[in-house]
Amino acid sequence: MTLLDRRRSFWAWGYEDALPDEAATSKLAAQIEAFFGETHSRSRGAPPLRSQLALAAPRVSLPADLSGSNADEDRITHTHGRGYADLVRGFLGDFRGAPDGVFFPRAEKDIESIFAWAASEQVTLVPYGGGTSVVSGVAAEVGPGKRGVATVDLCHLNQVLEVDSVSRAARIQAGAKGPELEAGLAPHGFTLRHFPQSFEFSTLGGWIATRAGGHYATLFTHIDDLVESVRMLTPAGVFETRRLPASGAGPDPNRWVLGSEGTLGIITEAWMRVVPKPTRRASASVRFTRFEDAVRAARMVAQSGLYPTNCRLLDSREAWLHHVVDDGSNVLLLGFESADHELGPWIDRAVALAVAEGGSCPTGVTQEARDAATWKQAFFDAPYLQSALVTLGVVVDTFETACTWDRFEALHANVVRRVESAMNEACGKGILTCRFTHVYPDGPAPYYTFLAPGRANEQIDQWRHIKDAACQALDESGATITHHHAVGRLHRPGYEKERPVPFEQALRATKAALDPDGLLNTGVLIAP
Amino acid sequence: MTLLDRRRSFWAWGYEDALPDEAATSKLAAQIEAFFGETHSRSRGAPPLRSQLALAAPRVSLPADLSGSNADEDRITHTHGRGYADLVRGFLGDFRGAPDGVFFPRAEKDIESIFAWAASEQVTLVPYGGGTSVVSGVAAEVGPGKRGVATVDLCHLNQVLEVDSVSRAARIQAGAKGPELEAGLAPHGFTLRHFPQSFEFSTLGGWIATRAGGHYATLFTHIDDLVESVRMLTPAGVFETRRLPASGAGPDPNRWVLGSEGTLGIITEAWMRVVPKPTRRASASVRFTRFEDAVRAARMVAQSGLYPTNCRLLDSREAWLHHVVDDGSNVLLLGFESADHELGPWIDRAVALAVAEGGSCPTGVTQEARDAATWKQAFFDAPYLQSALVTLGVVVDTFETACTWDRFEALHANVVRRVESAMNEACGKGILTCRFTHVYPDGPAPYYTFLAPGRANEQIDQWRHIKDAACQALDESGATITHHHAVGRLHRPGYEKERPVPFEQALRATKAALDPDGLLNTGVLIAP
Repeated sequence: MTLLDRRRSFWAWGYEDALPDEAATSKLAAQIEAFFGETHSRSRGAPPLRSQLALAAPRVSLPADLSGSNADEDRITHTHGRGYADLVRGFLGDFRGAPDGVFFPRAEKDIESIFAWAASEQVTLVPYGGGTSVVSGVAAEVGPGKRGVATVDLCHLNQVLEVDSVSRAARIQAGAKGPELEAGLAPHGFTLRHFPQSFEFSTLGGWIATRAGGHYATLFTHIDDLVESVRMLTPAGVFETRRLPASGAGPDPNRWVLGSEGTLGIITEAWMRVVPKPTRRASASVRFTRFEDAVRAARMVAQSGLYPTNCRLLDSREAWLHHVVDDGSNVLLLGFESADHELGPWIDRAVALAVAEGGSCPTGVTQEARDAATWKQAFFDAPYLQSALVTLGVVVDTFETACTWDRFEALHANVVRRVESAMNEACGKGILTCRFTHVYPDGPAPYYTFLAPGRANEQIDQWRHIKDAACQALDESGATITHHHAVGRLHRPGYEKERPVPFEQALRATKAALDPDGLLNTGVLIAP
Repeated sequence: MTLLDRRRSFWAWGYEDALPDEAATSKLAAQIEAFFGETHSRSRGAPPLRSQLALAAPRVSLPADLSGSNADEDRITHTHGRGYADLVRGFLGDFRGAPDGVFFPRAEKDIESIFAWAASEQVTLVPYGGGTSVVSGVAAEVGPGKRGVATVDLCHLNQVLEVDSVSRAARIQAGAKGPELEAGLAPHGFTLRHFPQSFEFSTLGGWIATRAGGHYATLFTHIDDLVESVRMLTPAGVFETRRLPASGAGPDPNRWVLGSEGTLGIITEAWMRVVPKPTRRASASVRFTRFEDAVRAARMVAQSGLYPTNCRLLDSREAWLHHVVDDGSNVLLLGFESADHELGPWIDRAVALAVAEGGSCPTGVTQEARDAATWKQAFFDAPYLQSALVTLGVVVDTFETACTWDRFEALHANVVRRVESAMNEACGKGILTCRFTHVYPDGPAPYYTFLAPGRANEQIDQWRHIKDAACQALDESGATITHHHAVGRLHRPGYEKERPVPFEQALRATKAALDPDGLLNTGVLIAP
């Protein structure tokens, strides 16, 4: 079977053939039963067949000569993102939110024609990359006064167009998925090294639109830092920035595009900063009995000026959940990589800083620490696992944030208190784990996973109760509503509390200038 | 004499007592004569006395209870920035551009009252930090339909208000000048380490408003990178961002403030990322016979992942002009600093990379290389020197940019060709030097200085001819109009070519939302 033959699940994460099989799911069910009691495997269900899914008739007909399709198959596969509620709805066969159709443009001029058509026909457009949004960023919401909604899938704009080996930059189309763009860069000896958890399916354009977080735990943590220039088609014209390593000329126009989440235009390509594939790696796993010591160690490393590629703290539950360790240790994974120099002095100093805070490093420094390898595999398996847990009726989701170091202890205590209470209220019990995905000199980016036993057909309400508690805890503690999962529609209430009031006015004014007919992604970032 | 007794020159750079004295100026005149011929010392002039300056009557009267002043002394000291044309006009006693008065607010509520007064009285406001703009950023331009213009000097808002030692951040008022904020941080063991050439007089608010470039040659090159959160008063309300190490929630609101150059509001304070004073330094000076080898060496270091604090390339003329070397060498100054670890492996690798491109490092690695110390002194002396050269009638200015590495060779050739032609046309001769102030993995930030013999009372026209040629060369070569000097009014034509067209619409819409009466800094960034 070739890659092209593989079919993505209409409801779950990823390829149908990569979902945990019967044996793996049974094993998972046993683990969950051991933890939550026996209620769970009993509630196990199965998704409907594709052929059983019923869609409402499309409200608008998409012109085929503009690459439009009203086919059920296309509408079904573009209905849901991959947040928890998406998975549950998809699993239950609920496709009421389907778009009226999908466009598959093959060139920029197609997109310009689609804008003209949508303005004339009064149809909302939803830009679509990999469809992996966990914040309802690709939901087909019909805008005020609009007749319907069409998704614009960039999958055909997926090429690496140009590589500048001297400046180490590449011009890449926005619809390129992680593996596609890496495959396009590899023959030139380069890599973007942006590996979000969604890497297999998410796209460059989606990463830029949502300010995705990636591989590097320090320095170049967001896709923002890798963007040299960007090209976005807006209903008001082409928004293309100049290729520059840096500039001080007015507010940075790239920053108007980064995080715009499809509300201002459709990103079609970008010049991205790439690097040679690393030739040297140094990695270590430092274990801590006490979480607070591990936190302080992470801070010391983040403030050291060493800038490790990997500096991921796993609390004891996270480490256990992902099979990294099972002895109750908290684990700080440290790693450096380079295509230029040996890394001994870097990793040695980072390990020394961590050990000085009470850590131990029994396995020493290696090219890739076993714990780090285990973690990496678990990291990319996690979305598949989440889908399997949905079939078992488990309420399972993640949320993430960032705050300054001085506030972390209070934030963490508040999150634990509120989320555990909410899990108890909604589900009777539950487990909450924490890791740091990225660290900065002035604060960490904590990432939480919760799992709780669900009741059949009540899971979305149960999940909503827990999610609301999490959002409330973040806001109360002065943390951000999202470090890299984006705002979409799901996080809009928290976002409205976080952003400066005049900034909302500025953003609305900007949208009115660039998208005067209000065609794009109604409900994302800005209340309709 | 205490610092408070020192008086800044009404026309020249800096303190009156720090300007080159008679002996130093005569020596400078001799050097210039040797280079340009004897015409120069003859044209030497003297500025008028303050008491001789005549101002037009103010068009509007500033209320004293709002901290306003219509005093001549205040109007004179706030008329000019410190660009070349400012210096010449001031030196010639031309103060026709004086504001009608100056406000000196002592609290945010004063600024809010000033907004209300200006809206009611139809008066343009010019936010003012250190007054060191070289791009006419503080010129008192009267907006369309306005009756006059008042400058708003933030000098009384100059305190370090709060220090968070855990997160390494400090809340600092926007009017704090470089030495003031460093003095406020020092008792806490911290430093901002942002040392633009204007450090002695420029302010935190000015740096943020203009995206100032600072001390670090790599990574944290702009003040942008040091801003954790910012508070800006706008006529539409308070624009205050949350203290966060990072976020992925929508477009970054800090980036709406950074580079807004006083057109959207008045920045009053910011939480800034600070660091402990470095305890270890390692520095080296690598010399190259051929400029292109030095450029390649700078690129190799910039792309190595070593991230030196200092990576400044001086071409042979720049090195000669600033007395670093006089043997025709091009010099690459490399330096690392840390409060955490020894720097041997870092500097050794950086020197090895540079030597591999054809450099030599006869003096080896030291704590501070002699060449670097000489350079640093010359760097901070340069603005005083420029003022002295103005008294000698010399046309002397700098301009700077950034471009990707693949374009640098063509850019440099084009700049040399156009600027040397323009100097020949306007002045008969001239000298052009080049350095890199900052380097990035994908490109350098070249900085040029030109000197040419001026003719009495024609210097501004001569300068304009050369400056226009420089701007044209930058645009033709795809470089930015400014890497860290800002746009102001001077660079607006180049800026209008560089920025995406829809971005101008977005910026105008944002201004209309935040400054609906058009009170702030007319003519900066946006054509009136």
